[in-house]
Amino acid sequence: MTDKSDPTTTRRGFLKAGLAAGGAVAAGGAAHAAGDPLITEIQPWAQGLGEGVDATPYGLPIKYEGDVVRRNVEWLTADTISSINFTPIHALDGTITPQGCAFERHHSGAIELRKEDYRLMINGLVDTPLVFTYADLERFPRVTRTYFLECAANTGMEWAGAQLNGSQFTHGMIHNMEYTGVTLRTLLEEAGVKPEGKWVMVEGADASSNARSIPLEKAMDDCLVAFKANGEALRMEHGYPVRLCVPGWEGNMWVKWLRRIEVGDKPWESREETSKYTDTLEDGTSRKWTWVMDAKSVVTSPSPQMPITHGKGPLVITGLAWSGRGAIARVDVSVDGGKNWKEARLAAPGQDMALTRFYLDHDWDGSEMFLQSRAIDSTGYVQPTKTQLREVRGLNSIYHNNCIQTWWVKPSGEAENVEVS
Amino acid sequence: MTDKSDPTTTRRGFLKAGLAAGGAVAAGGAAHAAGDPLITEIQPWAQGLGEGVDATPYGLPIKYEGDVVRRNVEWLTADTISSINFTPIHALDGTITPQGCAFERHHSGAIELRKEDYRLMINGLVDTPLVFTYADLERFPRVTRTYFLECAANTGMEWAGAQLNGSQFTHGMIHNMEYTGVTLRTLLEEAGVKPEGKWVMVEGADASSNARSIPLEKAMDDCLVAFKANGEALRMEHGYPVRLCVPGWEGNMWVKWLRRIEVGDKPWESREETSKYTDTLEDGTSRKWTWVMDAKSVVTSPSPQMPITHGKGPLVITGLAWSGRGAIARVDVSVDGGKNWKEARLAAPGQDMALTRFYLDHDWDGSEMFLQSRAIDSTGYVQPTKTQLREVRGLNSIYHNNCIQTWWVKPSGEAENVEVS
Repeated sequence: MTDKSDPTTTRRGFLKAGLAAGGAVAAGGAAHAAGDPLITEIQPWAQGLGEGVDATPYGLPIKYEGDVVRRNVEWLTADTISSINFTPIHALDGTITPQGCAFERHHSGAIELRKEDYRLMINGLVDTPLVFTYADLERFPRVTRTYFLECAANTGMEWAGAQLNGSQFTHGMIHNMEYTGVTLRTLLEEAGVKPEGKWVMVEGADASSNARSIPLEKAMDDCLVAFKANGEALRMEHGYPVRLCVPGWEGNMWVKWLRRIEVGDKPWESREETSKYTDTLEDGTSRKWTWVMDAKSVVTSPSPQMPITHGKGPLVITGLAWSGRGAIARVDVSVDGGKNWKEARLAAPGQDMALTRFYLDHDWDGSEMFLQSRAIDSTGYVQPTKTQLREVRGLNSIYHNNCIQTWWVKPSGEAENVEVS
Repeated sequence: MTDKSDPTTTRRGFLKAGLAAGGAVAAGGAAHAAGDPLITEIQPWAQGLGEGVDATPYGLPIKYEGDVVRRNVEWLTADTISSINFTPIHALDGTITPQGCAFERHHSGAIELRKEDYRLMINGLVDTPLVFTYADLERFPRVTRTYFLECAANTGMEWAGAQLNGSQFTHGMIHNMEYTGVTLRTLLEEAGVKPEGKWVMVEGADASSNARSIPLEKAMDDCLVAFKANGEALRMEHGYPVRLCVPGWEGNMWVKWLRRIEVGDKPWESREETSKYTDTLEDGTSRKWTWVMDAKSVVTSPSPQMPITHGKGPLVITGLAWSGRGAIARVDVSVDGGKNWKEARLAAPGQDMALTRFYLDHDWDGSEMFLQSRAIDSTGYVQPTKTQLREVRGLNSIYHNNCIQTWWVKPSGEAENVEVS
């Protein structure tokens, strides 16, 4: 079952490295054996019985992982009802984000809406206006796809320079789940889009009535009216019972508690696409309809929340990469602030509009590093530096910052968010 | 982004079907619009604010999904400490199993073992016996793979005939997660396996000291020493902080709280591979070393726990398929107890030793169905009928029942576990 995404290790390589590095890894491990009571004695957990299978009908993480949770930044918003919290990406591995710790953004809070009370209306320029119950939706052909959702504001603080310390806070407005639902195309074909229909407006059932305009081409391509994520029902905070997935496009368009889809001949210019989710440039004009999330990556460990604690020698550098334009083709990693690059190993071949995990097995000499990662997607797009991005977009933007991120890793192993010119 | 796994729908097809079926689906939905207060009135959840982003740092499912949980069958074991509970596969979709509702089997209960107290020993026929701490393991090259784990006893009750009503109970001793860890090969190469080393014994840290023998070929092929599942740390009930993955092989070998790996020149004939996990045949002799989980599938909905509630017309038939020998190549579904078969649509191309979701979009005429699914894997192996399996193995077995399952769906939409000859 070995394939190209398997790591290649030379036999005894780590033992050698460990010894060379003065007792790290295996050598360090072996050193335990002799006098380590955890080896030489029978431990309490091997002497008694543990918990039964009736203990947690639905389980939570073990108490020792209590710090691996979503966090919101108090000063970022006036209150937590219309706010954001962050996926603890620094502490995760692989690509799937469990719903329990997946990023949330609400405009008027997360609402409780029973399946029985759920309705989805399709109106506007259609042959037959329709209203679907949840039970109706379950009867249409179903698809299952894994997609990332990234908030357009993810990494937005970095426009003003290195700010927050931790990949959770700089890049944690993202999650990646296996969604199941009905394609929006299927429902629109059910209602019958009139020839003059060129746009759809998607609207949520919460008080904010979050509404966004989507070109018909995208709506008919890959948008998903989803009711499951990672196999189970959506969580309340992710739009239970039904949310929209707009693969590769900014998270605000993934309307939660999806209530209505209107077909029209032009965009709606809603609050969320005029006063918000536009990018003000140096000359004061704004880019609008900037829906696609460009190729991006970040090193999740080591990072400010994940310092190196084991000293020099073998070190796993890992992170995430993604692109709203297609699949991740390659990720490069630099330990010297972008002067030299090494190609990272992808855990699996890139998938369209889904997170890709990368690893670089590095032999750390114990000196400072300026850690960066650079994503290249299937269209050939290369993740830009912060300088390149500012040259084009200036400093007035909030959204769509996909710049290369730098962590200054000190000889102590601690890391800091910094800028390199 | 459309591909061959996309459902094909003819425009207005469902509306037609709905009308033909006397008001189902869209037509039924449309009927709501006029007088439905859920459409015509502003709902409470659109009038006020919901929950803030600080409400659930680590979230649980919404209260309305409280019945989607693991269940144990009281009479199955003497107590719940050495017992089994079942994944609610009837209520899930897609392929990922969230850890919170993933099947558990313990021999002496789930133990609490801190990362700091964790040790993994490699001894026996190796050049250098080694002990690894958790921190040591994190320094080796890491891989991420999605695999199913199935208990050898899954569906075991069916040997005696149709028993439990519900796919959760007949097929729920399974889960499918994205695992991250270090290959066992990497650690064995670190210690250096002596030429006479042909087997490894893997042992758990709990009181049961669950120990199994694995041929060196498998150990060096794709076994994974895992510390993450679906991106986050393993849950206590799944072996926190470290478990073994033995892809495609029976779940009992996926030792939790992995403590020791011994290399030897022959198998250990441990309790769990002599008195248990062997298959007694008609003549009283036993098959042993029956590690591989053969190709298998089950319809998860409709099923006894998931009756049809919407009457005739469009019906989504869905289920899971898997094989320990490779990838699922094809799944067929029968509504007449195996007389006629239709090829189901796979949600995605089959992956080696991982669950595959299948769908069949069926126009139900409202008459009784004898629902079956049949998996075919990449080796050409075809899932057998219960009769075929009994002819070879007799009725004395407990383990490795991968027979075709039958649900009798009645005109009322209710379903029952039955046998068809």
